[in-house]
Amino acid sequence: TAGMVGADLANLANEAALLAARRNLQQVTMQCFEDALDRIMIGAQRPLVLSPEERKITAYHESGHAIVAMMTPGGDAVHKVTIVPRGQTLGVTQFMPTEDRHNYSKNYLLARIAYGLGGRVAEQVALGEVTTGAENDFQNVTGIAREMVTRWGMSNSVGPVFYGADREVFLGREMSLGQQREYSEQTASMIDQEVKDIIQERYQFVEGILSNNRPFLDKMAETLLERETIDANDIAAMMRELHLEKPVATASR
Amino acid sequence: TAGMVGADLANLANEAALLAARRNLQQVTMQCFEDALDRIMIGAQRPLVLSPEERKITAYHESGHAIVAMMTPGGDAVHKVTIVPRGQTLGVTQFMPTEDRHNYSKNYLLARIAYGLGGRVAEQVALGEVTTGAENDFQNVTGIAREMVTRWGMSNSVGPVFYGADREVFLGREMSLGQQREYSEQTASMIDQEVKDIIQERYQFVEGILSNNRPFLDKMAETLLERETIDANDIAAMMRELHLEKPVATASR
Amino acid sequence: TAGMVGADLANLANEAALLAARRNLQQVTMQCFEDALDRIMIGAQRPLVLSPEERKITAYHESGHAIVAMMTPGGDAVHKVTIVPRGQTLGVTQFMPTEDRHNYSKNYLLARIAYGLGGRVAEQVALGEVTTGAENDFQNVTGIAREMVTRWGMSNSVGPVFYGADREVFLGREMSLGQQREYSEQTASMIDQEVKDIIQERYQFVEGILSNNRPFLDKMAETLLERETIDANDIAAMMRELHLEKPVATASR
Amino acid sequence: TAGMVGADLANLANEAALLAARRNLQQVTMQCFEDALDRIMIGAQRPLVLSPEERKITAYHESGHAIVAMMTPGGDAVHKVTIVPRGQTLGVTQFMPTEDRHNYSKNYLLARIAYGLGGRVAEQVALGEVTTGAENDFQNVTGIAREMVTRWGMSNSVGPVFYGADREVFLGREMSLGQQREYSEQTASMIDQEVKDIIQERYQFVEGILSNNRPFLDKMAETLLERETIDANDIAAMMRELHLEKPVATASR
Amino acid sequence: TAGMVGADLANLANEAALLAARRNLQQVTMQCFEDALDRIMIGAQRPLVLSPEERKITAYHESGHAIVAMMTPGGDAVHKVTIVPRGQTLGVTQFMPTEDRHNYSKNYLLARIAYGLGGRVAEQVALGEVTTGAENDFQNVTGIAREMVTRWGMSNSVGPVFYGADREVFLGREMSLGQQREYSEQTASMIDQEVKDIIQERYQFVEGILSNNRPFLDKMAETLLERETIDANDIAAMMRELHLEKPVATASR
Amino acid sequence: TAGMVGADLANLANEAALLAARRNLQQVTMQCFEDALDRIMIGAQRPLVLSPEERKITAYHESGHAIVAMMTPGGDAVHKVTIVPRGQTLGVTQFMPTEDRHNYSKNYLLARIAYGLGGRVAEQVALGEVTTGAENDFQNVTGIAREMVTRWGMSNSVGPVFYGADREVFLGREMSLGQQREYSEQTASMIDQEVKDIIQERYQFVEGILSNNRPFLDKMAETLLERETIDANDIAAMMRELHLEKPVATASR
Repeated sequence: TAGMVGADLANLANEAALLAARRNLQQVTMQCFEDALDRIMIGAQRPLVLSPEERKITAYHESGHAIVAMMTPGGDAVHKVTIVPRGQTLGVTQFMPTEDRHNYSKNYLLARIAYGLGGRVAEQVALGEVTTGAENDFQNVTGIAREMVTRWGMSNSVGPVFYGADREVFLGREMSLGQQREYSEQTASMIDQEVKDIIQERYQFVEGILSNNRPFLDKMAETLLERETIDANDIAAMMRELHLEKPVATASR
Repeated sequence: TAGMVGADLANLANEAALLAARRNLQQVTMQCFEDALDRIMIGAQRPLVLSPEERKITAYHESGHAIVAMMTPGGDAVHKVTIVPRGQTLGVTQFMPTEDRHNYSKNYLLARIAYGLGGRVAEQVALGEVTTGAENDFQNVTGIAREMVTRWGMSNSVGPVFYGADREVFLGREMSLGQQREYSEQTASMIDQEVKDIIQERYQFVEGILSNNRPFLDKMAETLLERETIDANDIAAMMRELHLEKPVATASR
Repeated sequence: TAGMVGADLANLANEAALLAARRNLQQVTMQCFEDALDRIMIGAQRPLVLSPEERKITAYHESGHAIVAMMTPGGDAVHKVTIVPRGQTLGVTQFMPTEDRHNYSKNYLLARIAYGLGGRVAEQVALGEVTTGAENDFQNVTGIAREMVTRWGMSNSVGPVFYGADREVFLGREMSLGQQREYSEQTASMIDQEVKDIIQERYQFVEGILSNNRPFLDKMAETLLERETIDANDIAAMMRELHLEKPVATASR
Repeated sequence: TAGMVGADLANLANEAALLAARRNLQQVTMQCFEDALDRIMIGAQRPLVLSPEERKITAYHESGHAIVAMMTPGGDAVHKVTIVPRGQTLGVTQFMPTEDRHNYSKNYLLARIAYGLGGRVAEQVALGEVTTGAENDFQNVTGIAREMVTRWGMSNSVGPVFYGADREVFLGREMSLGQQREYSEQTASMIDQEVKDIIQERYQFVEGILSNNRPFLDKMAETLLERETIDANDIAAMMRELHLEKPVATASR
Repeated sequence: TAGMVGADLANLANEAALLAARRNLQQVTMQCFEDALDRIMIGAQRPLVLSPEERKITAYHESGHAIVAMMTPGGDAVHKVTIVPRGQTLGVTQFMPTEDRHNYSKNYLLARIAYGLGGRVAEQVALGEVTTGAENDFQNVTGIAREMVTRWGMSNSVGPVFYGADREVFLGREMSLGQQREYSEQTASMIDQEVKDIIQERYQFVEGILSNNRPFLDKMAETLLERETIDANDIAAMMRELHLEKPVATASR
Repeated sequence: TAGMVGADLANLANEAALLAARRNLQQVTMQCFEDALDRIMIGAQRPLVLSPEERKITAYHESGHAIVAMMTPGGDAVHKVTIVPRGQTLGVTQFMPTEDRHNYSKNYLLARIAYGLGGRVAEQVALGEVTTGAENDFQNVTGIAREMVTRWGMSNSVGPVFYGADREVFLGREMSLGQQREYSEQTASMIDQEVKDIIQERYQFVEGILSNNRPFLDKMAETLLERETIDANDIAAMMRELHLEKPVATASR
């Protein structure tokens, strides 16, 4: 959920103004914007009580997303990490895109896959136990990798060939009404292999980052368990304390 | 049918209050809650008469579920076992989730598959005869194993790739209206193999438990044939008598 | 068409009462029940004239069903055999389930497959000529074998995995509206092989029974050609005369 | 188009009566029945003029059907052969079923496949040139062979397994609305091979008949070119002249 | 677009009469018929200007169709060749069927495939450059070859088996609404191979004809570029001049 | 988006006239036509601000299209190149077809594939980083290559066989409503291989052109970053300065 387009920003401003009005404020404060952003991107808070075990898993899961994002060159910056449950999610890591992008580079996409996988890998590395909480992460990550291979020519073995499908809208829903896949089983198998290779290379990359940054991971998880929400400044402070720096992006593979 | 969410609990309280009202009670007794839980989860009693042979098979089948649940670390606790037929079922083993979970660990899911298979294995181990009564168990168990492999990244050979499908709602029914499976036959075959491997590993695990706990199995089945319904206290008493203890969960494979 | 559930019995009683009323009887006689059962399960009589050759084939076909049922342990008892054509069928073998079953054992299902195949095998063994008359038998037998393999975990090589499909109802008809088969071609092939193996094992079993009981087969066919309809008592008398006994069921394979 | 059921006979009688009325006849003559049968089974005559070459091909094509039927044991008797074009067809060979059948033997079905192929084989054997005129013959013959294999258990390698599909009616048309084929590609391939084997065995059988009966074939074709229509008596006369006899059916393979 | 049935001829006569009326002629002249035929088969003229290069390609393309038709035994006679663009087409080669056929011989179909391919082969042989202009030719030629293999039993390796599909009409359009292909992938592959073999054999045959008749090809193309339209007499004159004769048909392969 | 048909030209003239009217001009100037062409082919301008990095990537991407078009014989001429974002696109390279074509030669199609790939290759060659901006290019290029193989007989290994599908219109949308692909998996695989081979051969061809013309590429990108839009005259001036010439087309492979 990184990146906002113009319409999103207008919506955000409007929502922030509404909040200021409801709170009888003279002006729209920065806090209004923060809360409006939360409402738009996550939904309203709900009074959900997690067990201590689930809070701990969630703290490590979100820390995993955030730390991989911090330690991977070329991705978005982390804006806020929270384990206050809202809507359907037990925790959230928010990103702040560094600039208003229209196209995405392969490097950037690989970075997004990496921090998408960070939650699950953190559970595994730190707790030795994996949960169903990574389902949405896997769906997003697989979607990006599949489009890299089938639409964006970013796989060497598949090459600059387009294997996407036009989606039809039927009775107001986007669906493919009996549309036959145009390519062969052999091609489908090659695409699957590439998608899997991309994700597995990233998974190992992320395992390396989180294994090598175990103290950072433990510290962030502990801090989240204490304070529930941390922001970019808190993370920067932790990194200074641990003598860590965000690596710089280089040209793509 | 283990686990209840908030809405279920509200429904349960309401149903219990209705029962108390119908019975002209001053307060909602624990018995009202028990009966309400039964009504919600199984349906109303029906005057169905089983043959002695079917009663015996059912007693062993339900005992199989219950004993595997007791002897498998990481699963839900058994709440009640009954061979009083209600609704569509000849017997029921009810579980009491140990805590209010939102995500599920791989260990927990493997435990659920295990006691899902316990009914059929008990028929086979104790009676040397298998029946069609395990159809729903197989459907549930296969569904869990398939989601472990295709949505939750819990199979090493398939990896953290998402192979699920979005379901469409058409004319008020969830269905996939001509939606093409996105992945290849080769991937489908790999997924099938993993699902089968998970279930067969669990089946052998369950055969081990029930073969090694034959006296427990016979005792529970006999008790059920005598008393029709037993609860957690009855099972705890049997286990003390047989010097058995519920094993403690360790980290997942 | 073996086995009746409660609703069927209510329907039967009602139909018998109607017949008694139409015949101005003071009470519902056993004959009314017999005729009502015939009407429900076969349809009204029609004045159809078979050629001598077709009568002979039909007599052997029905005798095949009946004799295999008598000589296979664990199946239903034969109630009546007739070659009076009714509705769409040239002849019928009626079964009387030994008890009110809710689940079915593997042994029982194998017995039903066996006597389902008995009609065709009798044509082949006794007349050396096979006909299209076994189409419905093959459809029923294949349906049972397929459910044994895909829903009831009764095939060792396929195992306790559920490969059934939920059927949708669309415009009042049960159909699978574009629903994609969830499993792979490789699994489909394995299922087909198992279904075929079960049926072919049963076919050879039935060939053995009918070859070894040729005098019984000839006698029953001749009797049917003479008297058109025989019942359980007639069959028992034939068996006594031929010094034959129904074998006793043992535990399943 | 061999064989008529009861409803067909009623229809025939009705049509014959109508013809008699239109012709102001006192009674329904045999000729009325003949003409009514033609109208029902072929359609009304049309003033179509064939080229001499097409007349010759048609004469050989129809003679092929008729001679194979005469020389194959177990099939229907030939009633009439004509090269007067009617409806969509350039010529017709009518059969007279020997008795009112309800089920069909494998021998009978193999005979029908044989004389269905007789038209094309006659073109090839006698004229060395094949035409599109056999399309309907191939469709009928393939349909019979496919049902022998998939519904009637008449193929040894496929066995007594049912591979047919229930057809749905949707918007008043019988169709399979997205219904998934239940069996595997491997089974489909085995079925195709069997269907092809049956038809090719029959094709060679028919080549043998027509090669060995070349004088009969030439004589019937010449007679048709002269007289346009011949009946069972004419054919019997030709056979007597050529010292030929219809072979007697023996037990099936 | 060779061949006309009775209804077409009636339509032609009608259209010719209309043209005569519009032109205030006393009788329907041969020119009226010619122009009516053009209107029916090609559409009204449109003021389309081709570049010199496209005119040259079109001249060779149409000459290719015409010369292959002239030099292939068993096909239709050429009636007229034109490079005056009309409707959707840049040029047209019209054929005059030698007789009113109802069925088609394999020889005739092979001839039609040959001259269908003649346009593309002429581009390649004479200009060394191929264009998209042959799309409709390929569609027609492939359709004929596929029906030869799947409906008309004209391929030895596929044999006299029918692999066609009945088409359904849904909402007024002919389509196959989810209808499952009845045969296997292996059969589909065999059919494809046969279709391809037929077309490629014909392609080489046509390459031989046009390479061996290069002077004829150049002469006809040049004449078309000069006079835009030529008829059967013009072609006959060219052939006399070049000492060429149309070969006579022999029996099919 | 190269090439305009008659209707497009009429539309263009109309649009230019409207622009002239809105600007109170006495006559339709060439500038009106230019702007009208832009409106029709790209859409209205939008005030979109690109980051310096995206402007640079876009400049190289568009230069890649333009330079490959200039250096590939047989394609269209470049009319204008711009990095002013409009509608959905960040930049545009407009082509001016050299003549009004109705059919397309294989050479021309290969040239279009080449300059379609030029954008992505320029990103890779000059910046060492690839982006999602080539998605539409890949879709167009793959569409052309697929039609070359399946409809236009321009692949040697697939040959002059038509593998296209008729598209149906349903509820006002073109779609294939459950239409079964007529050819086999093996053919589909062969088609995919050919499509991929064509595109990969072109990709290497384009890599050669852009590697060998690096100074031209850098110069055009720099000029675009300075002036945002350049036309055919600007490009011709650059080529003269760099002593480059457009190569002449030769016969197709």
